[in-house]
Amino acid sequence: MQGAVLYGPRDVRFEKRETPKIIQPTDAVLRIAATCVCGSDLWPYRGLQPIDGPTPMGHEYCGFVEEVGNAVKLVKPGQFVIGSFATSDNTCPNCLYGYHSSCIHREFMLRAQAPFLRVPLADGTLVPTPAGTPSHDLIPSLLTASDVLGTGWFAAEAANVKQGGTVVVVGDGAVGLLGVLSARQRGAGRIIAMSRKDARQKLARDFGATDIVTERGEAGTALIKEITKGIGADSVLECVGTQESMMQAIQSARPGGFVSYVGVPHDVTLDGAQLFFSHVHLHGGPAPVRRYLPKLIELILNGNIEPGKVFDLVLPLDQVAEGYRAMDERRAIKALLLPQTV
Amino acid sequence: MQGAVLYGPRDVRFEKRETPKIIQPTDAVLRIAATCVCGSDLWPYRGLQPIDGPTPMGHEYCGFVEEVGNAVKLVKPGQFVIGSFATSDNTCPNCLYGYHSSCIHREFMLRAQAPFLRVPLADGTLVPTPAGTPSHDLIPSLLTASDVLGTGWFAAEAANVKQGGTVVVVGDGAVGLLGVLSARQRGAGRIIAMSRKDARQKLARDFGATDIVTERGEAGTALIKEITKGIGADSVLECVGTQESMMQAIQSARPGGFVSYVGVPHDVTLDGAQLFFSHVHLHGGPAPVRRYLPKLIELILNGNIEPGKVFDLVLPLDQVAEGYRAMDERRAIKALLLPQTV
Repeated sequence: MQGAVLYGPRDVRFEKRETPKIIQPTDAVLRIAATCVCGSDLWPYRGLQPIDGPTPMGHEYCGFVEEVGNAVKLVKPGQFVIGSFATSDNTCPNCLYGYHSSCIHREFMLRAQAPFLRVPLADGTLVPTPAGTPSHDLIPSLLTASDVLGTGWFAAEAANVKQGGTVVVVGDGAVGLLGVLSARQRGAGRIIAMSRKDARQKLARDFGATDIVTERGEAGTALIKEITKGIGADSVLECVGTQESMMQAIQSARPGGFVSYVGVPHDVTLDGAQLFFSHVHLHGGPAPVRRYLPKLIELILNGNIEPGKVFDLVLPLDQVAEGYRAMDERRAIKALLLPQTV
Repeated sequence: MQGAVLYGPRDVRFEKRETPKIIQPTDAVLRIAATCVCGSDLWPYRGLQPIDGPTPMGHEYCGFVEEVGNAVKLVKPGQFVIGSFATSDNTCPNCLYGYHSSCIHREFMLRAQAPFLRVPLADGTLVPTPAGTPSHDLIPSLLTASDVLGTGWFAAEAANVKQGGTVVVVGDGAVGLLGVLSARQRGAGRIIAMSRKDARQKLARDFGATDIVTERGEAGTALIKEITKGIGADSVLECVGTQESMMQAIQSARPGGFVSYVGVPHDVTLDGAQLFFSHVHLHGGPAPVRRYLPKLIELILNGNIEPGKVFDLVLPLDQVAEGYRAMDERRAIKALLLPQTV
């Protein structure tokens, strides 16, 4: 088969890769229905995160179970499944506490931009859609549950978004936009999206944003304070991962408010005393997507949410390099990739 | 009057200071029944926190209302009152959310090691004991509510200590020990105190610790993991404020666990990515003691708790310098200071 491989800064190639097969008895191999490019893929793509030689890419996936190992009991060939970007056994203490993305057997998925994918710990990682194969038009939305929707959902939960609460979302990438959607689902009263691009502002409003703030830094903070009784928001979702976005988030929350951060921080350091006097709650990390999958799949199949709207570019998988380019240049919010085997 | 003044490293003097009087109509002046030396006073005492010339000291206090300003309505002369180390109006949005120590009119108390003390925002800061003057033997316990008990209480709440949960307390100063007491009051199942000193270990056990860990760093973390299903504790209270203690706390919590930090961090920086993958919740800041005062006073007056046991040294106020020395040298856990006017 052929799949995506990153060779260096802005050099993604679609080229021959080994077709995956069962290695461990707990593995499954999927035939991918859809995969995509993630905002987090742009860190190594831009050379901001080192890679160790040519690196297969991709961690978001859904598709059909092609084959399972001997020890796989719950997942069956032919099922349509969605899995998390992090594998989990769904039985260890961390999984039982709901932190599947810190499963003691966790592996991060790394090869999903391809027509076939090996998924370790299949029973604990994959969730089949109830009632068989979903209709074709739902596949983009189901794909988002694999990472960006689950991550936005975690961001809203970790920021303690409550009925009637005031929410700020820092970052207008797919995760930030789906953080808006998630905050809306949790009944937030006011959702302030920080965004400067028309298309993203429009989607934020579609997903439930009540206010758009284009200012950043101190000016952005001042505007948010103005909207929030002079003290800051109840909940702030940090969906970028830079020093600037983290500080923007902390400064936008009220004392006693909640800040979540869900993108891997890159060169972010927090000053202990500054954090102390901000009085915020801070929680984040890799989203425990597996915990949310059954609920998110249900919301999508029932038509309650349509997170697949974040895909504003659809490409055949062999044009994966264009997907990276379009997202890098912020021409696209998120690029959907369709293997030709489906 | 005479009170404590810090001149420089290890140079506390008991000397003439201006007797406080009403300045703002919302002020009260107290005749101090008891005050004390705080672990946080040791930072400037040791020269680890710069001072700007001779500095009056002390922020923990209880005593009798001597005089009130025209605008004071709730607090009355003759009442016995306990106040927080941070003033609060008890009416601003931050106070209404329970974060009195981020009151928009907050001032930090700074002159309590003295026979008389001016307290700004008296109505929002001071809480009288119900049923009049408390018996003399309860005064040390009531004094702890002004800071160290309220701070330990906040530490337990911010670390989400729950019925049956597993708790680690990093730091065996008065705050850490009262964090143990607070965790016990919240019904923790197992309370692991990290302490190396006999007297402190004994008091930790008196207050409810079930386990003592003397190891630190990686050895300490390994032991805690061994006690906690291999994954770490549900709740960790960081009661020191150094880089080492903060890292010890974060590494002792399980993914999804809660870390509180309640001492002002000194030269502490947190690496964003490390915090992210730790998956902990983090919350801290100056304890909103005012919120807890009515409850804590009730628990003390009813004899449910005896936090005053942290005072293992009692001195007349004019020997305040010895109080600092004894705590600096870790000969005393906490020094109670009694003005001679009472």
